Amino acid sequence: MNTIGHNLKLTVYGESHGKSIGAVLDGLPSGEYLDWDEVKKEMARRAPGKNTLSTSRKEGDVFDVQSGYFNDATTGTPLAVMIENTNTRSEDYDELRHLMRPGHADYTGKVRYDGYNDYRGGGHFSGRLTAPLVFAGAVASQILARRGIYVGSHILQIHDVQDRPFNPVHEELSLLLFLKNMTLPLLDETRTEAMEEAVAVAKSRQDSVGGIIEGIVTGMPAGYGDPLFDSVESRLAQMLFSVPAVKGIEFGDGFALAAMTGSESNDSFYYDKDGTVKTRTNHNGGINGGITNGMPLVFRTVIKATASIGQEQQTVDTDSGKDTTLIIKGRHDPCIVQRAVSVIEAATAWTVLDILLTRGDL
Amino acid sequence: MNTIGHNLKLTVYGESHGKSIGAVLDGLPSGEYLDWDEVKKEMARRAPGKNTLSTSRKEGDVFDVQSGYFNDATTGTPLAVMIENTNTRSEDYDELRHLMRPGHADYTGKVRYDGYNDYRGGGHFSGRLTAPLVFAGAVASQILARRGIYVGSHILQIHDVQDRPFNPVHEELSLLLFLKNMTLPLLDETRTEAMEEAVAVAKSRQDSVGGIIEGIVTGMPAGYGDPLFDSVESRLAQMLFSVPAVKGIEFGDGFALAAMTGSESNDSFYYDKDGTVKTRTNHNGGINGGITNGMPLVFRTVIKATASIGQEQQTVDTDSGKDTTLIIKGRHDPCIVQRAVSVIEAATAWTVLDILLTRGDL
Amino acid sequence: MNTIGHNLKLTVYGESHGKSIGAVLDGLPSGEYLDWDEVKKEMARRAPGKNTLSTSRKEGDVFDVQSGYFNDATTGTPLAVMIENTNTRSEDYDELRHLMRPGHADYTGKVRYDGYNDYRGGGHFSGRLTAPLVFAGAVASQILARRGIYVGSHILQIHDVQDRPFNPVHEELSLLLFLKNMTLPLLDETRTEAMEEAVAVAKSRQDSVGGIIEGIVTGMPAGYGDPLFDSVESRLAQMLFSVPAVKGIEFGDGFALAAMTGSESNDSFYYDKDGTVKTRTNHNGGINGGITNGMPLVFRTVIKATASIGQEQQTVDTDSGKDTTLIIKGRHDPCIVQRAVSVIEAATAWTVLDILLTRGDL
Amino acid sequence: MNTIGHNLKLTVYGESHGKSIGAVLDGLPSGEYLDWDEVKKEMARRAPGKNTLSTSRKEGDVFDVQSGYFNDATTGTPLAVMIENTNTRSEDYDELRHLMRPGHADYTGKVRYDGYNDYRGGGHFSGRLTAPLVFAGAVASQILARRGIYVGSHILQIHDVQDRPFNPVHEELSLLLFLKNMTLPLLDETRTEAMEEAVAVAKSRQDSVGGIIEGIVTGMPAGYGDPLFDSVESRLAQMLFSVPAVKGIEFGDGFALAAMTGSESNDSFYYDKDGTVKTRTNHNGGINGGITNGMPLVFRTVIKATASIGQEQQTVDTDSGKDTTLIIKGRHDPCIVQRAVSVIEAATAWTVLDILLTRGDL
Repeated sequence: MNTIGHNLKLTVYGESHGKSIGAVLDGLPSGEYLDWDEVKKEMARRAPGKNTLSTSRKEGDVFDVQSGYFNDATTGTPLAVMIENTNTRSEDYDELRHLMRPGHADYTGKVRYDGYNDYRGGGHFSGRLTAPLVFAGAVASQILARRGIYVGSHILQIHDVQDRPFNPVHEELSLLLFLKNMTLPLLDETRTEAMEEAVAVAKSRQDSVGGIIEGIVTGMPAGYGDPLFDSVESRLAQMLFSVPAVKGIEFGDGFALAAMTGSESNDSFYYDKDGTVKTRTNHNGGINGGITNGMPLVFRTVIKATASIGQEQQTVDTDSGKDTTLIIKGRHDPCIVQRAVSVIEAATAWTVLDILLTRGDL
Repeated sequence: MNTIGHNLKLTVYGESHGKSIGAVLDGLPSGEYLDWDEVKKEMARRAPGKNTLSTSRKEGDVFDVQSGYFNDATTGTPLAVMIENTNTRSEDYDELRHLMRPGHADYTGKVRYDGYNDYRGGGHFSGRLTAPLVFAGAVASQILARRGIYVGSHILQIHDVQDRPFNPVHEELSLLLFLKNMTLPLLDETRTEAMEEAVAVAKSRQDSVGGIIEGIVTGMPAGYGDPLFDSVESRLAQMLFSVPAVKGIEFGDGFALAAMTGSESNDSFYYDKDGTVKTRTNHNGGINGGITNGMPLVFRTVIKATASIGQEQQTVDTDSGKDTTLIIKGRHDPCIVQRAVSVIEAATAWTVLDILLTRGDL
Repeated sequence: MNTIGHNLKLTVYGESHGKSIGAVLDGLPSGEYLDWDEVKKEMARRAPGKNTLSTSRKEGDVFDVQSGYFNDATTGTPLAVMIENTNTRSEDYDELRHLMRPGHADYTGKVRYDGYNDYRGGGHFSGRLTAPLVFAGAVASQILARRGIYVGSHILQIHDVQDRPFNPVHEELSLLLFLKNMTLPLLDETRTEAMEEAVAVAKSRQDSVGGIIEGIVTGMPAGYGDPLFDSVESRLAQMLFSVPAVKGIEFGDGFALAAMTGSESNDSFYYDKDGTVKTRTNHNGGINGGITNGMPLVFRTVIKATASIGQEQQTVDTDSGKDTTLIIKGRHDPCIVQRAVSVIEAATAWTVLDILLTRGDL
Repeated sequence: MNTIGHNLKLTVYGESHGKSIGAVLDGLPSGEYLDWDEVKKEMARRAPGKNTLSTSRKEGDVFDVQSGYFNDATTGTPLAVMIENTNTRSEDYDELRHLMRPGHADYTGKVRYDGYNDYRGGGHFSGRLTAPLVFAGAVASQILARRGIYVGSHILQIHDVQDRPFNPVHEELSLLLFLKNMTLPLLDETRTEAMEEAVAVAKSRQDSVGGIIEGIVTGMPAGYGDPLFDSVESRLAQMLFSVPAVKGIEFGDGFALAAMTGSESNDSFYYDKDGTVKTRTNHNGGINGGITNGMPLVFRTVIKATASIGQEQQTVDTDSGKDTTLIIKGRHDPCIVQRAVSVIEAATAWTVLDILLTRGDL
């Protein structure tokens, strides 16, 4: 279903070419001031059309808060937001009703909803549905920041070009904030050109590229999350896999742990000068047994290459019941990794706030 | 919390050294015959002490069904199962109250529960808690098999030794069933010796190794799952990350998709001879937009090396408030990957059954 | 929280004087045509200002569907609706910030949300929030009607004037439909004048009156609902108690069962001519053990008198921290029972549809 | 489903004649000492066979805690309890497979579960399933009492004999505790004999009687609960309607509010000597807009007469497909109201604890 969360619930609605998309944010603490300009900045990070890496389409991600905010503070009752769909050229999409785009949800959506799904622009499956998620995350981020918790991320890889990874034990807040202002958020800025080139090559071939985003949460206190089904990994993964194009998630050293021994991957505990317990390494990504241990949360998500490409592709025509070929018209993002950065951060911030709100002490 | 699922709910309880561990399986279809010998066989796959790879400890995973099964069929009301804890030597674990084992949940559990957690043998965080999960999965597997759906898996990697991957487009049922009877379920049996050797080396060094398990679900019909938060990936990931030691999950080509182009990773559709829609490749692991497309579900999970090792490790003593060293007594599994295979399969089967039960048609 | 339901989820947002109120309807079956004029008619039944019984205030309950409806059918993805708030005269409500109206949620809302609640016109606690519920119920009713299931209701009592009760064993569909067109839906129309008089008397005294609404659901098949926590009574009650002013619910003979014996209240089973099992009486309101038995569902809800009255009342001033008196300005409904009829029907229809969608057969 | 709650989840399993019944209590605060003798006393209040009012059958409600309690305190992880079924004489119940007892769930259970339900002694629908609920409530009561919150109740009515109601504005704790020790908990003890006589008359006629239980919660702080779907009324009602035989619930003055005017039913606020806000009357049962206002919660539930009676009754035989008559063998409770008292209190205490745990402050 389209609602997620425990004490903090997020409900998302909309189709790419419908009247609007939006969300209901339920369970926010009351009395929180929100800087709407900051939210706008986050929304702009996700929006297309900012540079040569993405499509020149303009999406009007103007959000309109309907409820839950009064006298410059959250009321604690649901905060609903609406984002109007403008500049929708439905005529581009008519053949999507019966020609199933490879890598997209055209076929699965058709089967799931018995052919009644809104197929225009991917409909409910469109990447555009991440806009309300970015809004929710931008709200959560401000509330977290007031408690000293920050979510940052960078692009670890686009196609075959790699950035250096985060220091999992400590990263400065100033760095995390700096990354938010970069078009290509990289720790090693010398890789910028190579990444842009990889995208440019794909674009010139009417193709697209994927990548990996690495996220970090600093300031997270120990003792949040639950064993088993509500482990921090379980909750973040449920949310992150709801982002279109995400096909893998790993925490700490992730898949590299397969080739490590226990003596290598166990993080030794020690008392820091201020008396808090810390670990010298962070191979477990700040989580032991599903619960935060006070170290930064570190994780990576893979974003597959944009499914919409300009090349001719083989597919089926569900009208004729025959195999056919398809050329997807319109302008496409040769790479969405840089746009997905704000989505991954938002999904993380929202989930972290829910985890904090759900411990249920008396 | 300890309950997961939508129309099929699983609730798990217990501590490693408490009276019993167990589960309540709620929402099972009524009228399903269950072969308890088959369930026992699955439980035995998880149990330790079967070969030199794992500890020689014996765990009595004798399950005792309390309800929900009557006249050789499920009633449709909750099926509760109890597994008594026997052979518990609590004296081995007394120092775990204040010496925090690296890589374990001793510290996070202590913080989460304000020091009231049962620390004996890891308590509620023990890998032993996966026994009720294997039970649940074994029940689900039989119900799925009657509908032509099968869950199989093999060890793709232990330490630096790799098996060949599944054919993501088609694997024979006979192969999947054959794997269930192997101590080390491998597609390429010539790798057996190398894997055993890797474990033996770790054991000789009082160390441990991790690995990767690859899972496949065949016979899954198209059109199940939901967009966004209840995507098939989201639901499987929430469940799989509840398995201790799992630190990463990927679907289809997973992290390898980062370096692929859209023209490479898009799976082309075609009409099969019988008129069903299929894809020629399966880079997306049988899932588009969170919904099954009729191809096999394919995914991989990484299992970190067993945290319990015999070497001396650095840690904190929460009684003295000082740094110290720790040697964990007792016999340890140098590798749990081969035992985790049945857990991953069980978690998958249970989740797949819930996904099938939740579509909500009238 | 503001989301209810299992396979059919309803999320409601908004405040009386905010930008809009609305709802997200998630889990609707796809392919359902909706007659929007019918929905408008239901919305109009709830709206004030239609006759002398209610306030002459006009509320613009114009709904605007944002998503989930395409090519004259539900898509199966969330159907979001927005109802703009117009004609809001916030200046009338300024003193509500610190003068707590007796019988209202001004005080509890203030405590619950630490003083940050939107107090204008009752804010999130306003009866206006039932408009999205009526919308949702009107949608559900059309889907149910296509399956032969109808929800009807009448006013059983206003103040001390009573209507005759439904025949719990059988009521004609034509009667249920006829009731929907009556300003005061009564089975015994001769009581109309007496009821109107009771309201007029209260109005002349600047007072208000309460009443009882009796509901019936016909065509409900046997075998839906669950034992224990998801009993049909539990689910309907959770929903119906979310309607402001509802303070009691009873099924079948309800509180009258206290004075009945088992031989009186047990409903005997028999085979009807068509071979279906029926009961000769319906003291249990169509529900045994939480599950429908194929007879009509029958229940009653009590609606307390409108809390807003023109008389001077004693209360507290949270600014001064002193006791004081209050006269609520503006025009008030001397009776909301006749408006609540459509809300109760809507809440029932929505819940019944969820119950039908949640059985979870394979 | 068989799980209820938000931050505090209760999962119940079992059938009357299965191996055991039980529950998993998840989300309890850690570090709570539990007096098991107190729990036993509560269990004994529910158990049959204590006096001439109920059946002389003996049920062995010996509970066996499996997990979640360690070193004399709750661990915070799931507390599982098992209650063995003993003294089950299944031979008494063989005809229940095809002769549907009026007023019971035999028929609806058969339809719901396609004939696979355990019909012995009512199976999963048996009143016996309230034993785990009483256990859970007894645990919750101790935790609440430590925070100054008490749940009490008395029998307001059995058949046509009535007790006087609670003073809704104030009742002494000593009175609530005294009621717990009475076989027939009455405020006006002079009615004891008349009530016993009413039961005796029913018993002599092989019939049964129903009644009304009034509950009160004192010490409840203001500001708990939510508007709409998680109103205190909604949550208590969902739980209370899961108790077999409950067919109606009302809060405050309940159905009597129908005949009252707004000036009568509005509870005026005032500042008490200690500066807390109170209401002079309590017609709303301590709840405004779904949220507690700091006054006692007051409510009533109706318990229908025991469905099992010794008289011959008309019903259907699902084997032959014909109408028939039935005489239920065995010893029956002529009245279960006095046994239901502890169940209603338990259900209330558990729900109140969940409401307290779910506010979700940071």
